[in-house]
Amino acid sequence: MARCAGAIGATARALKCSARPVARTASVAVASTSASPLSHLARPAVPLATRTLSSRAFSTTVNRSGGVAAPRRPDFKKLDADDVAFFRSVLSSPSSLITTIESPDGSWSAATSEDLIAYNLDWMDKYKGNSPIVLKPKTTGEVSKIIAYCYKKRIAVVPQGGNTGLVGGGVPVYDELVLNTEGMNQIRDFDDVSGILTTDAGCILEVLSNYLQPKGYMMPLDLGAKGSCHIGGNVSTNAGGLRLLRYGSLHGSVLGIEAVLPDEHGTVISVNMPGGGGAGALRKDNTGYDLKQLFIGAEGTLGVVTGVSILTPRLPSAVNVAVLSVPDFESVQTVFKEARAQLGEILSAFEFWDQEGLDLVLAHTGAKSPFESEPEGGRAFYVLIETSGSNKDHDDEKLGGLLEKLLEDGIIADGTLAQDETQALGLWSLRESLPEAAGKLGKVLKFDVSVPLSRYYELVEEARERFDKMGLVADGSIKTTVGYGHIGDSNLHINIVAKEYNEKTESAVEPWIYEAVAKRNGSISAEHGLGLMKANHVHYSKTEPAIALMQQIRRLFDPRGILNPGKYLPPVEHLPEEGQEKIK
Amino acid sequence: MARCAGAIGATARALKCSARPVARTASVAVASTSASPLSHLARPAVPLATRTLSSRAFSTTVNRSGGVAAPRRPDFKKLDADDVAFFRSVLSSPSSLITTIESPDGSWSAATSEDLIAYNLDWMDKYKGNSPIVLKPKTTGEVSKIIAYCYKKRIAVVPQGGNTGLVGGGVPVYDELVLNTEGMNQIRDFDDVSGILTTDAGCILEVLSNYLQPKGYMMPLDLGAKGSCHIGGNVSTNAGGLRLLRYGSLHGSVLGIEAVLPDEHGTVISVNMPGGGGAGALRKDNTGYDLKQLFIGAEGTLGVVTGVSILTPRLPSAVNVAVLSVPDFESVQTVFKEARAQLGEILSAFEFWDQEGLDLVLAHTGAKSPFESEPEGGRAFYVLIETSGSNKDHDDEKLGGLLEKLLEDGIIADGTLAQDETQALGLWSLRESLPEAAGKLGKVLKFDVSVPLSRYYELVEEARERFDKMGLVADGSIKTTVGYGHIGDSNLHINIVAKEYNEKTESAVEPWIYEAVAKRNGSISAEHGLGLMKANHVHYSKTEPAIALMQQIRRLFDPRGILNPGKYLPPVEHLPEEGQEKIK
Repeated sequence: MARCAGAIGATARALKCSARPVARTASVAVASTSASPLSHLARPAVPLATRTLSSRAFSTTVNRSGGVAAPRRPDFKKLDADDVAFFRSVLSSPSSLITTIESPDGSWSAATSEDLIAYNLDWMDKYKGNSPIVLKPKTTGEVSKIIAYCYKKRIAVVPQGGNTGLVGGGVPVYDELVLNTEGMNQIRDFDDVSGILTTDAGCILEVLSNYLQPKGYMMPLDLGAKGSCHIGGNVSTNAGGLRLLRYGSLHGSVLGIEAVLPDEHGTVISVNMPGGGGAGALRKDNTGYDLKQLFIGAEGTLGVVTGVSILTPRLPSAVNVAVLSVPDFESVQTVFKEARAQLGEILSAFEFWDQEGLDLVLAHTGAKSPFESEPEGGRAFYVLIETSGSNKDHDDEKLGGLLEKLLEDGIIADGTLAQDETQALGLWSLRESLPEAAGKLGKVLKFDVSVPLSRYYELVEEARERFDKMGLVADGSIKTTVGYGHIGDSNLHINIVAKEYNEKTESAVEPWIYEAVAKRNGSISAEHGLGLMKANHVHYSKTEPAIALMQQIRRLFDPRGILNPGKYLPPVEHLPEEGQEKIK
Repeated sequence: MARCAGAIGATARALKCSARPVARTASVAVASTSASPLSHLARPAVPLATRTLSSRAFSTTVNRSGGVAAPRRPDFKKLDADDVAFFRSVLSSPSSLITTIESPDGSWSAATSEDLIAYNLDWMDKYKGNSPIVLKPKTTGEVSKIIAYCYKKRIAVVPQGGNTGLVGGGVPVYDELVLNTEGMNQIRDFDDVSGILTTDAGCILEVLSNYLQPKGYMMPLDLGAKGSCHIGGNVSTNAGGLRLLRYGSLHGSVLGIEAVLPDEHGTVISVNMPGGGGAGALRKDNTGYDLKQLFIGAEGTLGVVTGVSILTPRLPSAVNVAVLSVPDFESVQTVFKEARAQLGEILSAFEFWDQEGLDLVLAHTGAKSPFESEPEGGRAFYVLIETSGSNKDHDDEKLGGLLEKLLEDGIIADGTLAQDETQALGLWSLRESLPEAAGKLGKVLKFDVSVPLSRYYELVEEARERFDKMGLVADGSIKTTVGYGHIGDSNLHINIVAKEYNEKTESAVEPWIYEAVAKRNGSISAEHGLGLMKANHVHYSKTEPAIALMQQIRRLFDPRGILNPGKYLPPVEHLPEEGQEKIK
């Protein structure tokens, strides 16, 4: 078999690859890491229960939802010792229940509110509730009994996975019961012919990735929070992440869902789950409405997802990573178009960040620049290209050809190619440490939007200009505005780093940013969901009839509105009363 | 760049490629067709209105739905001249209306029932209704007015696309109004950076493919009926087809839907459609329930799909096609596993048929066998492998490597590789003429199921044995049982060719075959849908709570049950009365 090292070497040399940390070797041929999907550096994996509060401004945390959270519904039951006694009778393990409610007869010892903080507070320190009870059932049967009880007693429930969400969807607003899935962490089945994995909702994404790797498969999604987030949460938020460009959305790859419905029986609905009755997990099944699709991205408002069946792709045998510097955003688009055309089926990620983003990362993570020289005029735009394929030589040749053409055409100014897995991880970390680096500089107002590519970066520029004009930067209240994201999916993350979360900065940003997105026919939530933050802002991206239909669907599934109340959609005026139709 | 023609040539020679029509050249190196997606031979493209009745046993055609069609609902209005007058006032073109209802004042000339047959009868001659009115609106606005009127007057409506369905979902059962989408045939928008195509529901799949080809894109689905079927029908039936293995299901690739809801306003709901209000077509949009998913595969029961936005993949620059002969079904599975591993990202189709299938095609199409020699023992199994990629040399090398390994391991007995596009089409036609060839032998009882691969072919064997034992073959009432399908998706088509459609053959086959599928946790409808044929059989593949939820969703969208009544799901006992909640 022929190798094309010569041609690729020439390309790489012309790219002036540096010998710095991320590209240490002197040899500059394109090298695939013949390994495994990259274990991207990202948020540290910390079990919820052991999270420390060291840096948390606990007492000053405020729930924010465009400034307004709907009041607590008075018809929801206040949790008490009788409820605790019932839940204890249902749970197979005493450690599945944590509560601050005192036991009248000493049959349990009450926890402190400190013990519950990790479940009441989101990881951004932005949303905080005051739930007195956290339940961590181990089986779908336990979840069913809990939900049936909550339905009958009108107890509000927040389904919670790894609590890595960014929009306040997974923590209580008031005193809702927290139903955490971390006790449901069993892999149920894996079929190594079809690649179909069936698992409890509480399995951690990275655990699933590690399970699949030796079998030659991988998860079709990857995201920064992989070390903590649960697959049930991924499905409930329709997580997108780094691989969507290649492997598509969960609407395509999730084949089956098991969920517990908020009705008097805690009905377990099983759609295309092996062993759940009816057809198992199949790539094709056209027997009725595809109910599982509704649960994907429903943020726990239609039922509690307890199990997932998902189609996993083959692990690529070759992975290449390159980071390129280009002079303007137009060139970013040109590189993307060329990459799609020339890399075709092996293009697996196309990420982007701006100069502000790189500066933040270099300043706050100790990483060194992957480039030999400073960009002309002090500013550039950066893209990360990843290829994943089944033949290393072919992939090297395709990527080499692309880079050669981009250099010849004068599109790219500088670039670095990873020579091994460590270097590939280093390049990925430039992109993936960005959220963390922003967090070190201040409190981050995070916006996750989709906008057509042609109008993608102008949104960042407009925001930056706006805050300059308003003097918000001069007085230090807004420190910087950073743009980065998944170009391949038109998904832009705008991070506005402020001194603190306060009304002044928030009102400068919201709803202006939603309006700016709506003007461009974009989405105000590309992959992070609505939660508490955007429940009242859906109209920026969906029409009135669509929202009305959504509200009716929610009411159909959850007639008493006990799941994640006050979140996801604008509230409806009336809840149906007893005796009205319920889910059978 | 290095070529590996030598190695591939050796492989191909060892495969004893014949010099017959499908692989005419003496040179046997693997050759990519550097062209275009293959214009697969399939059902002829005939506009509905011009279909002839030559071979149609019109008067004896019976509606079959496991033997039973629900009676006509007495509350549905009988269509009359007033209705015709209203529809005429709404439609921009007089040719958009065909009716057998006489005009009281001569303001229109009535059609004959012959004029309506193409809309009342399915293409298999199996399902026949007696609608006196066919409407072919040209715009969404016209559809809206029609549906609002039908809602108010309680007129039952059958949405119809190209009428290429196989389960009686697109033709009337009784006198329902036929709302055909062929007048809505405009391509609305194509974005050549993102590959997003937005189109009217009535565009023919092949027309869209031909539109995209010179732009370097292709439709993510392909099926035998491409010359006649409408994209709106594809979406409404969640059509699968030949490319699903590579490009995934419509649940992943459809980005936006416009539909008219069956309410008093004929509300137009637009979800992620450019120009429809709210966010446009985007790869990522997590703002509320993904409503469009419900319309995908709803067979027109929730609303009339009038527009579609779909993500189209890049046209591959290289396509290879090979047909292999293997001695048993176990080897089919081995070849599939090896193909997935070695072809990885370029594998675009993996099709299968049995000896009975090949015999039928050779006997009824005049095609010659692609193989030099007869299979040992007179029986073999056949697979078609297609690769689509961005680099011809790379693809040749990958496919060559696979074939070499399969030969070395003694897995494949014989094989043919297409040397050019004509030969590729020839090989494809072996697979694609199968349904047509079966139709020439007799009346075909078609079953479209999904079953796990390990139990895939035993279903065909069991069926065949059953009919032998019952003597149904000996007396000629069942002529043959053929198995073929999309192995890559576990999708099996069982065709049972009978002398005629009658109760004897049908009761021998149904519900036995559904039970046989259910025992294997398969789906009784992989890609063809439920329609009239399987409305009462959903329980073989879905659990009771799931079916109950589906019925409630249907009632929520269509409170008067005017869309496709009697089809898709088992009927619910009560329909809500006036004054109950309706879709806003």
